Amino acid sequence: MLHLQSETDARWFDQVDAHLDEVLIDHAHCEKKAAGTALNLIFHYVENRDLCREMTEIVNEELEHFHMVLDLLEKRGIAFRRLKPSQYGRKLNDLVSKQEPQRAVDRLLVAGLIEARSCERFHALAQHVEDAELSEFYASLFESEARHHSTYTRLAKHFASEEQVMSRLDELAALEAQVIAIGEPLARMHS
Amino acid sequence: MLHLQSETDARWFDQVDAHLDEVLIDHAHCEKKAAGTALNLIFHYVENRDLCREMTEIVNEELEHFHMVLDLLEKRGIAFRRLKPSQYGRKLNDLVSKQEPQRAVDRLLVAGLIEARSCERFHALAQHVEDAELSEFYASLFESEARHHSTYTRLAKHFASEEQVMSRLDELAALEAQVIAIGEPLARMHS
Ligand SMILES: [Fe+2]
Ligand SMILES: [Fe+2]
Ligand SMILES: [Fe+2]
Ligand SMILES: [Fe+2]
Repeated sequence: MLHLQSETDARWFDQVDAHLDEVLIDHAHCEKKAAGTALNLIFHYVENRDLCREMTEIVNEELEHFHMVLDLLEKRGIAFRRLKPSQYGRKLNDLVSKQEPQRAVDRLLVAGLIEARSCERFHALAQHVEDAELSEFYASLFESEARHHSTYTRLAKHFASEEQVMSRLDELAALEAQVIAIGEPLARMHS
Repeated sequence: MLHLQSETDARWFDQVDAHLDEVLIDHAHCEKKAAGTALNLIFHYVENRDLCREMTEIVNEELEHFHMVLDLLEKRGIAFRRLKPSQYGRKLNDLVSKQEPQRAVDRLLVAGLIEARSCERFHALAQHVEDAELSEFYASLFESEARHHSTYTRLAKHFASEEQVMSRLDELAALEAQVIAIGEPLARMHS
């Protein structure tokens, strides 16, 4: 359903256990970035009414998630702050074609893969942490990120055939799995 | 209430009468840009929780307005399209200080003045057009843009004293009145 080609492994859980607060702060920034991605897509493909409608929904939901994570941080006494982002998003965005209409397909599929990975990580986190409040929180977010993944994948089909989209999705998902397997030393939602 | 130093004059109404469709299309783009401005402020001043909360509201409302204008265009059989923007926004953004915290104050006040001018123009348009549907539409939008103006002005006081903010607002409002008085040949919401 999520089109991911790997599952989160022990390395990431070790990072979470050692730096949970940082992962939570990073999560807030991720939600804000997700809203930015969706709004940027409206700016770039403003003639596509269906895309504008779907992206509007996603902007609203991601900003709601952003505030939910900020509330969670506040409740837990974790000071929200700027954080060096993981390289995950940049590495995936580097895979995007410079040429339209392939660029539109790639931007949507990459955004969708980031949603899919968030979804997979939220689910993994919900099962991993002992803390019931945190576990419920991540279980509650999980479903909407799965839905966002489907929305992005569906919208990509406005810009190429179903077959082209699905084969490009396979390609990008394989690269995504490579990026996430390499990981990075900073503990982040997508490290 | 809106801190504007001039009222829309006959020159703009002539542009509206000659190119109403273009003004309406430009309006849709303005609502989209207003959402972008508010989201950018979240990105730049993310540590300010109050600002993030207010900007989230504004992003949601501006995107709602964007879709309301798109619906109106569709209903009237006007094809939505890309349009060369007016120079109004760029000219006002050029007035913004490069140096924080003055930059924050200026960005908020300029955003607030654009809201105020939109509000004034929506009101003027509602009274000017004979078309009852259009008149009601602009009367209905008018109130939220006035509220956005107040929000931006209030938030500026997070970054400077009340007195500094109000005196800078006077300065910027005088420059805004000059920009709008010069106008421009393209018929736009802020021409
Ligand atoms: Fe989210
Ligand atoms: Fe999402
Ligand atoms: Fe608006
Ligand atoms: Fe507004």
